[in-house]
Amino acid sequence: MNESSGLFAAAEIGNTISKDVFDAQIEALRVDLLNAQFDLRHENFSVVLLIAGDDRPGAVNLFRTLHDWMDARYMQNHITFGAEHNEDAERPVLGRYWRRLPADGQIGVYLGGWPTSFLRVGLQEEWTKAQFERAAEHISRFEQQLVDDGTLVLKYWLHLPDDILQKRLKAAEQDPEKHWDFAQHDWELLQQSDELFQQIEALVRRTHTLAAPWSIIESTDQYYATLTVGRHIADALAARLEQPDLAPSLTPPVSNLSPQSLLGQIDLTLSADQDTYSSDLQSLQSNLNQLAHKAQQAGVSCVFVFEGVDAAGKGGAIRRLVRALPVEYVRVIAIGAPNEAEKAHHYLWRFWTRIPKPGHDVVFDRSWYGRVLVERVEGFATEFEWSRAYEEINEFEESLFDAGMVVCKFWLQIDADEQLQRFEARALTPYKKYKLTEEDYRNREKWDEYQLAADDMVARTNTPYAPWHLIAANDKRHARLQVLRTVTAALQQRLDDVDAAADEGGDKKNGRKQKKSKS
Amino acid sequence: MNESSGLFAAAEIGNTISKDVFDAQIEALRVDLLNAQFDLRHENFSVVLLIAGDDRPGAVNLFRTLHDWMDARYMQNHITFGAEHNEDAERPVLGRYWRRLPADGQIGVYLGGWPTSFLRVGLQEEWTKAQFERAAEHISRFEQQLVDDGTLVLKYWLHLPDDILQKRLKAAEQDPEKHWDFAQHDWELLQQSDELFQQIEALVRRTHTLAAPWSIIESTDQYYATLTVGRHIADALAARLEQPDLAPSLTPPVSNLSPQSLLGQIDLTLSADQDTYSSDLQSLQSNLNQLAHKAQQAGVSCVFVFEGVDAAGKGGAIRRLVRALPVEYVRVIAIGAPNEAEKAHHYLWRFWTRIPKPGHDVVFDRSWYGRVLVERVEGFATEFEWSRAYEEINEFEESLFDAGMVVCKFWLQIDADEQLQRFEARALTPYKKYKLTEEDYRNREKWDEYQLAADDMVARTNTPYAPWHLIAANDKRHARLQVLRTVTAALQQRLDDVDAAADEGGDKKNGRKQKKSKS
Repeated sequence: MNESSGLFAAAEIGNTISKDVFDAQIEALRVDLLNAQFDLRHENFSVVLLIAGDDRPGAVNLFRTLHDWMDARYMQNHITFGAEHNEDAERPVLGRYWRRLPADGQIGVYLGGWPTSFLRVGLQEEWTKAQFERAAEHISRFEQQLVDDGTLVLKYWLHLPDDILQKRLKAAEQDPEKHWDFAQHDWELLQQSDELFQQIEALVRRTHTLAAPWSIIESTDQYYATLTVGRHIADALAARLEQPDLAPSLTPPVSNLSPQSLLGQIDLTLSADQDTYSSDLQSLQSNLNQLAHKAQQAGVSCVFVFEGVDAAGKGGAIRRLVRALPVEYVRVIAIGAPNEAEKAHHYLWRFWTRIPKPGHDVVFDRSWYGRVLVERVEGFATEFEWSRAYEEINEFEESLFDAGMVVCKFWLQIDADEQLQRFEARALTPYKKYKLTEEDYRNREKWDEYQLAADDMVARTNTPYAPWHLIAANDKRHARLQVLRTVTAALQQRLDDVDAAADEGGDKKNGRKQKKSKS
Repeated sequence: MNESSGLFAAAEIGNTISKDVFDAQIEALRVDLLNAQFDLRHENFSVVLLIAGDDRPGAVNLFRTLHDWMDARYMQNHITFGAEHNEDAERPVLGRYWRRLPADGQIGVYLGGWPTSFLRVGLQEEWTKAQFERAAEHISRFEQQLVDDGTLVLKYWLHLPDDILQKRLKAAEQDPEKHWDFAQHDWELLQQSDELFQQIEALVRRTHTLAAPWSIIESTDQYYATLTVGRHIADALAARLEQPDLAPSLTPPVSNLSPQSLLGQIDLTLSADQDTYSSDLQSLQSNLNQLAHKAQQAGVSCVFVFEGVDAAGKGGAIRRLVRALPVEYVRVIAIGAPNEAEKAHHYLWRFWTRIPKPGHDVVFDRSWYGRVLVERVEGFATEFEWSRAYEEINEFEESLFDAGMVVCKFWLQIDADEQLQRFEARALTPYKKYKLTEEDYRNREKWDEYQLAADDMVARTNTPYAPWHLIAANDKRHARLQVLRTVTAALQQRLDDVDAAADEGGDKKNGRKQKKSKS
């Protein structure tokens, strides 16, 4: 830190603790930490511990001490500092952290963590101030989502004045037992410009939120830093365990204001005759197949979402779409009730773990929108949970878009009469999977509630980066063609954008993808 | 295939099916396949479909057709052919397939699959005939383990005479809708030597086992190949669904013959006084820390296994060991009862998914040996299941060793009196995790059965590549030092081996690891 700023000034006042005081307190602190971990095991929340700072060696040391004090079986370590990761190039940056969130009852410890990942990418790509601000916004929203989900988020920033860090690096390099700890980039980082440090400070400041505040820790004296953080963790855990079902700070749920029905405006009389269907289907699939191969080679991924009531024709439309995609790179995922591991995580976790690799496609047959459809209507999610889900979903989809993915969402609309007719037809089909259960008929009783929920969903999550496509689906042939046309247009648009960006040599992200296509 | 061999001769007789016959049968076949998938969903077994062959484009085509016919939501596709994979360099080769096994009720479809992965590595590394034979042995044992676990394994090898493949490649290159399907390496493969094809044929022949036979399919006529395989899958699924709880072919369990107790020979009077302990502990940890860093840089991974009765001192020994390892690269995993997802897979799956990356270490606090300890004694595994587990475990650990990992297994032995004393001491400790439950005392009643099971375990899984270290643990200090000494010796030995191999420039595998360490 070349110049001490206001934010860090309070962490340069020379806090120290003697070794005697330190030693005297360790025993009790360890008992508290281990007992808190023991109690945490069966609670319905998780703990996220972020240890970062300009004092990387100090952060590593703190991380080690905590690892030594606590029960390693109930914590997972995730290192961003120092270690080399192929995943650093991974997009979205937050994806790797979403996937590595601890399950309920567990502690995830992140050394360096997401702020460090963003800083690295920002440095590599020479981000503008606006880009750093955007990163801070992503971080804040990510942390807010964890806190809203009940996660205890504890963030520590270890600060050390420049001159002291330099001395320590020099001393450590001479010490055979310590020189492993010090990396060349510690020196490189010290030689960075003031501007970088201002950006780091700004990032820390902007991500110092009410939901997830930073504790800025002076790390000149390691006894002080270690004991302070250890005690803070023990106390924060104990306080949270006193209120295990702590409701996250409630903002009043958005009240439902949908005077006009969006879904009601869909023209359900649209149809296609058999001849048109046959010839259009073939040409659309053939054309899309070539586009999809180009997209695959350019590293462009697609995320397709299909929603609609039972018997709306999602399965049939998906089959026609998938037939046009390169089968080696496409995966269809049917989303039902979450399993045990999924229930022990944030509801978006099971989707973050399934987003496609570059050039791969994923089709979701039902999706994260279950949060605001079935979970809302059936009462599986609280009002607070489903109300805030619209923003959480928008944030999630924006991350996918920012990472260069095409997000294509379809709502297949049929009316209640059509559904009944299809149910009756299913009684005659040889396919067992279409045999009906009582639940199918029971769901029909809540038709209006589901339509209202779907209307809200479309209104609140119809974004430029992940638009909804409302498909008139009373006529299956029309619906299937319409899906194919929509996908073709979206993919063509994206490939044109990629080409244009490559021609300009301008946009970095698309440029990166484009490079891949030439190999 | 430059020269038709006996094995493939039967697949060059000119089988064909007319388009009319094909079309007439598709409808019924699809109904059968989809209904079988529907019925499979809630069964306690999974299906593994392997599609490989010398006719890569034909195999891709078959794969696509199956994907189109079946319900993509209950199958996962895994491509080895054609697609680029970083994981190709991954060791052990079978690890990526173990991790990607379908859960119960699901179908995993493998295009190319493990035979293709082994062939690729073998080609790259110019394997000897003996190495190919070893690969075939690994494949056969892997498939046997799946079948023993109840998995339905179906393997299809698509064969096409050379001259026809050449014609097809030429034609496809001209076709804008098909040229995506053909890769440069199709040509390269055609130009390979007869010797290679003999090795391929030998691999197919050697992996044509009773448990998992190959169906060799003539793929000259795609109607014939597709319909034949599709019908075979539908029939095999239907047959298996008729007997969902089919007991795998039983070999009689090995009868228990342990006249001498191995564990009884451990000298439990061994001890270390406090002074020796303090000074030895520090020097051992310091020395091990440096070795461990060298191992980390050399890409050498360690898998540590700790077993022993309750209160044997596993946790304390693990803590002293972990303190000496580079904390950023070590993970401690406590193994308890399997969760929902783990129960839906082979019992080794949850360990295959957790083996360390190169340079990382994993410490298992209890392990896969639960299969032959608690599961045997408490009756959670059948006699057939735990009896065959010794060989399964040996095979698993051999794969880790072959991949360059150090496998270090500790059995911490205490006597029943010592356990009781420790239980009583725990009543007084401030650590909640040591508070006893009735179950702890109940387990004591089966002391002799657990000792017998442990004795069998050591006798049958004490291999040169993954030896057991029996630790006298009535004295905790002695046990902890002994663990550290053992790990130090094992790691030193491995690093010496790596150095020696690098000096000779001989051994390919260690050479590969070594290269990494120079970066």
